[in-house]
Amino acid sequence: MSLSIVIMAAGKGTRMKSSRPKVLHKLAGRPMLSHVIGTTQGLGAQKLIVITGHGADAVEQAMRVAFAQAPLAFARQEPQLGTGHAVQQAVPQLPDEGTTLILNGDVPLIEAATARALVEACGGERLALLTVVLDDPTGYGRIVRDQATEDSQPTVKAIVEHKDASEAQRAIREVYTGMMAAPTRWLKQALAGLRNDNAQGEYYLTDVVASAVADGVPVVAAHPGDETEVLGVNSPAQLADLERRHQRAQAERLMEQGVRLADPARFDLRGTLACGRDVDIDVNCIFEGDVSLGDEVRIGAHCVVRNARIEAGAVIHPFTHIDGDKEGVTVGEGSLIGPFARLRPGAQLGAEVHIGNFVEVKNSTLARGAKANHLAYLGDATVGERVNYGAGSITANYDGANKHRTVIGNDVHVGSNCVLIAPITLGDGATIGGGSTLSKNAPAGQLTVARTKAVSLAGWTRPVKQPK
Amino acid sequence: MSLSIVIMAAGKGTRMKSSRPKVLHKLAGRPMLSHVIGTTQGLGAQKLIVITGHGADAVEQAMRVAFAQAPLAFARQEPQLGTGHAVQQAVPQLPDEGTTLILNGDVPLIEAATARALVEACGGERLALLTVVLDDPTGYGRIVRDQATEDSQPTVKAIVEHKDASEAQRAIREVYTGMMAAPTRWLKQALAGLRNDNAQGEYYLTDVVASAVADGVPVVAAHPGDETEVLGVNSPAQLADLERRHQRAQAERLMEQGVRLADPARFDLRGTLACGRDVDIDVNCIFEGDVSLGDEVRIGAHCVVRNARIEAGAVIHPFTHIDGDKEGVTVGEGSLIGPFARLRPGAQLGAEVHIGNFVEVKNSTLARGAKANHLAYLGDATVGERVNYGAGSITANYDGANKHRTVIGNDVHVGSNCVLIAPITLGDGATIGGGSTLSKNAPAGQLTVARTKAVSLAGWTRPVKQPK
Amino acid sequence: MSLSIVIMAAGKGTRMKSSRPKVLHKLAGRPMLSHVIGTTQGLGAQKLIVITGHGADAVEQAMRVAFAQAPLAFARQEPQLGTGHAVQQAVPQLPDEGTTLILNGDVPLIEAATARALVEACGGERLALLTVVLDDPTGYGRIVRDQATEDSQPTVKAIVEHKDASEAQRAIREVYTGMMAAPTRWLKQALAGLRNDNAQGEYYLTDVVASAVADGVPVVAAHPGDETEVLGVNSPAQLADLERRHQRAQAERLMEQGVRLADPARFDLRGTLACGRDVDIDVNCIFEGDVSLGDEVRIGAHCVVRNARIEAGAVIHPFTHIDGDKEGVTVGEGSLIGPFARLRPGAQLGAEVHIGNFVEVKNSTLARGAKANHLAYLGDATVGERVNYGAGSITANYDGANKHRTVIGNDVHVGSNCVLIAPITLGDGATIGGGSTLSKNAPAGQLTVARTKAVSLAGWTRPVKQPK
Repeated sequence: MSLSIVIMAAGKGTRMKSSRPKVLHKLAGRPMLSHVIGTTQGLGAQKLIVITGHGADAVEQAMRVAFAQAPLAFARQEPQLGTGHAVQQAVPQLPDEGTTLILNGDVPLIEAATARALVEACGGERLALLTVVLDDPTGYGRIVRDQATEDSQPTVKAIVEHKDASEAQRAIREVYTGMMAAPTRWLKQALAGLRNDNAQGEYYLTDVVASAVADGVPVVAAHPGDETEVLGVNSPAQLADLERRHQRAQAERLMEQGVRLADPARFDLRGTLACGRDVDIDVNCIFEGDVSLGDEVRIGAHCVVRNARIEAGAVIHPFTHIDGDKEGVTVGEGSLIGPFARLRPGAQLGAEVHIGNFVEVKNSTLARGAKANHLAYLGDATVGERVNYGAGSITANYDGANKHRTVIGNDVHVGSNCVLIAPITLGDGATIGGGSTLSKNAPAGQLTVARTKAVSLAGWTRPVKQPK
Repeated sequence: MSLSIVIMAAGKGTRMKSSRPKVLHKLAGRPMLSHVIGTTQGLGAQKLIVITGHGADAVEQAMRVAFAQAPLAFARQEPQLGTGHAVQQAVPQLPDEGTTLILNGDVPLIEAATARALVEACGGERLALLTVVLDDPTGYGRIVRDQATEDSQPTVKAIVEHKDASEAQRAIREVYTGMMAAPTRWLKQALAGLRNDNAQGEYYLTDVVASAVADGVPVVAAHPGDETEVLGVNSPAQLADLERRHQRAQAERLMEQGVRLADPARFDLRGTLACGRDVDIDVNCIFEGDVSLGDEVRIGAHCVVRNARIEAGAVIHPFTHIDGDKEGVTVGEGSLIGPFARLRPGAQLGAEVHIGNFVEVKNSTLARGAKANHLAYLGDATVGERVNYGAGSITANYDGANKHRTVIGNDVHVGSNCVLIAPITLGDGATIGGGSTLSKNAPAGQLTVARTKAVSLAGWTRPVKQPK
Repeated sequence: MSLSIVIMAAGKGTRMKSSRPKVLHKLAGRPMLSHVIGTTQGLGAQKLIVITGHGADAVEQAMRVAFAQAPLAFARQEPQLGTGHAVQQAVPQLPDEGTTLILNGDVPLIEAATARALVEACGGERLALLTVVLDDPTGYGRIVRDQATEDSQPTVKAIVEHKDASEAQRAIREVYTGMMAAPTRWLKQALAGLRNDNAQGEYYLTDVVASAVADGVPVVAAHPGDETEVLGVNSPAQLADLERRHQRAQAERLMEQGVRLADPARFDLRGTLACGRDVDIDVNCIFEGDVSLGDEVRIGAHCVVRNARIEAGAVIHPFTHIDGDKEGVTVGEGSLIGPFARLRPGAQLGAEVHIGNFVEVKNSTLARGAKANHLAYLGDATVGERVNYGAGSITANYDGANKHRTVIGNDVHVGSNCVLIAPITLGDGATIGGGSTLSKNAPAGQLTVARTKAVSLAGWTRPVKQPK
């Protein structure tokens, strides 16, 4: 059966106190609306229409980029005259057949299974409401049901807003979540009949329940797996609350796979994290983009890792910052990185590479067993096997206008505080004396050194402190 | 009406197990007593008397410095013979007229609105007790009230200590918080009548309730907005608990203003934080002193920022340490700082400045567009627009006795691992070759380089590992 | 009376999804089994037998190393045919006399006091079960007791597995924890009589309860001080939960001693931490191995400290990484370290030493008042009093084959970006000019400098950006 999906994303989100449209606020590093659209991708919808309004240009542009392959459609709601009015904007793009599922762009954690259950509850012929039972339903629209007959579930007969509810109705703990699925043809007709003769002068989507009852369309309910799925975001505090719930759930999932987290409450994943066997992650680590960790990888405390592949047995010490951005970063098997190391885009480290404290690597390839242990910079370099790159040494890769490459052969030993002015090549087995600045190639197997003789001045006296 | 405030701050705090007087222990970076005094500053008191005892000299000195402008008075309580005795020490300094408000220096989170409500409940003629209803009142003095008549609230007739309470009284959940307001003239007389014929041999302030009842002074109650306001600190665990409640409350307030916090449970503010619109703060950040963040500022994870102004659109990457101390730090619009950067006092960065990893800036001005991206030190420097300050380069600003200034003109390009021995000036557009150590000025527009020719030794053999 | 202890450690821990034997998974930095064995060390057992099975070689090897001084015995259970079968493997090594205490290697937080209480409840003649009352006993074996007579406690008559329990029995909230103590002679006989005629075909230890009832051996119960003591670990999530409970308990203990923790929920101790008076520890610090902090020591946020002694009044600024490994690290009185400092094994700092940002110290002794404040490396060095070691300076301690020592006398001033090629000695009071690379000793009291004259090229033009 044909499925259409309408996602409400026109709201301003006044309480966010932000110039950014509400649905573009990020949860786990992605706009809330991206979460919802992402969740719908497996549902097999023929049509996906996002209702935009506040910040419509920005919202549409962001989603077109994020879902370049998906056939997204947009409908503008301007001005915003209520939830029913919002869905009305989608009507011209909706086919007559099949089911329409209505989701909310600011309810980001809805699961595909729940959406599917809602669509199934509709079955192309019923109005299916997503409802949830809350301990404290204050403020929510209550689900009022018929008396059940002996062989049936009580059916839904109305959604009553909190402010309109009687004392008895307020005792009802089942509430409407804002999501529903309906037969499209009937829904169009119901939407056309909405009226705005209420205090707010708005067209309410919930009024279709009365139409369904009047039209003899059965009204049924489906339920989410977890309350968190139906929580909406109206303020930074709610966004932070959902962020934490989501992070906690992600942590639980990883632990179920065998990943050991030192503290699931101090773990952040903003993207995807693929883990091998026996991975240990210490406190306060943040993973962003696409990260994979091989078997037996250990990530020390306080690390930030983005778009990187860390291979089996590598150890990332505390305070390491890895960001592969678009080019990616690879850390080879058994490598040791950090503490206080920074790997930037294009750092491609082979097996058993050591990168130590206060070392930065960018757009460079290091072959097996290469080491840069202290206070060094490797940019735009190709480094051979077993190279020892000395403390304080720097590849001068930028002449102020262009970037140039440094090539360091196998078994080269670069002394301390050297400057390698690129383009430059150090031949296999070359040794570069400490403190040398080289602007020309160094031959293989030889010691190359640029150094001035030291002189000592016996009569010299130290400066003395001047009065200010 | 005249208001006097007495703050009890004489206690030792044995359970703190500290050589520091209890009220000087810090909450959110300030002594607990400073919080209480700070809260009283808007109440319009004619007299503010702090009762000191244990560590009196240290307490008085710290408060005189912290509240140099406020007319603080002190009264010593030596020895400490109970809460009533403590207030007695203030009597000689209290005027006869008006109301006296009694607060506690170890109950730091009392709000001005609550103090005001307590004073109003007193109204210069009633004894007003600050009371709170607890789920578990065990250990606290219970508020025993009269039967209410048809048209009145039940009035307070006694505070009964937990250990003296009957079974029925122990069921009372309303307890005394240690704070009260009373007509000053009557209070003086009630204090004069206190007796110490109890097991501890102490003069209890709570005994004034019996005097009030005897004297026909009505005893009324006021309540705090939140239980946290009346929690006292007697141990490091209680201090940590209050710290967390306070930090959580501060986080909530910021989120209400629109600030986005990735995790409100991992946020610390020890001072004031002014935020523009659309500010993002990642996990584990700490703000101290006075910090302001402009519109669209992003603070990465694990940053420490103290006494600094970060202007609109600046991005502070993870692991950045900014401490303006007394001189302050400014980060200009759209600047990019970190990761692993340290900005020290007097770092004044213009717009679009880039400070990268393992770079330290101290007492230096960087003009628009200047960059120091890698492993560098800028101290006592004036850096022009668009300067590129190379990896590993250092201003040698200290000759062992005096600090000297480095002046770098606009558009200067400083190569890698240079040493600029101050005082020194690099003219506009100068280029300094990598590895140069300069002790004299470099002319504008020219390449200046200090470098030795490299030699290669073909016959050289590497050292071999010696047996130990 | 003779005490034997049997610790069950043969299980696979399928839900850990790990190739590591379950009992070797770490809690607070030590294998769970090490916690249990450690706890037994004060109980005065004549015999301590660990039942191994899955990964037996690894488990036995790890414990032999961890408890080299303790007389550990092992018994292999292969294949694993149930808990009763496990204890049967220990029988040949058990003496006939006295009491046998049975503990679990995957229940790591059992306290010695609880073990002792269980042994006492046994008294060499009763079967004593460790039981606990749970709010939700679902899934656990229930403790079924006799009716109590007027002058007695109801005695235990059976453990009924959840799945076998009647409705009434399921209402029982007292459950068995897996730990017991029994008269050894009787236990051997009871174990010999176990049968595996159950659905799993396993020998259940709990079946000895029926034997005891049949034999007229009284069955009694003892209880842990806290529920956490009896929680077992079957999954990474349970391991993380226990880790947090344990860390929280450790934090509470330290706070009771007077240590001030900025956030007890963000504190990790994996080893021992001895603290003097008035120690302050900021958020997110991790302590590993053996660490001692003297009076008034302050540890800033986000620090990692392992195997180190920090003496009185020292201040460790944020983002400092100290790891003494086997050699240890000492930070002298009043020293200032960090931010972004790294102290490695063998760093021995005297009083009032300053180690600043991006500085690494390894296997080096720094005497009173020595300073290395910026971007420097000190490896294998002996540094005298009041030395000022300049920004960017490096000891070239490694010639590619051997490590050599640098000796810096008192009052030496090393300029910026110097390279000291070891072995080398700088005499007392020597001054080394910035940018100097020295391969020979520098005389005392003189200025030694290796520097090339700068030249400026007026006609030079900067590179221009090449089209790609």
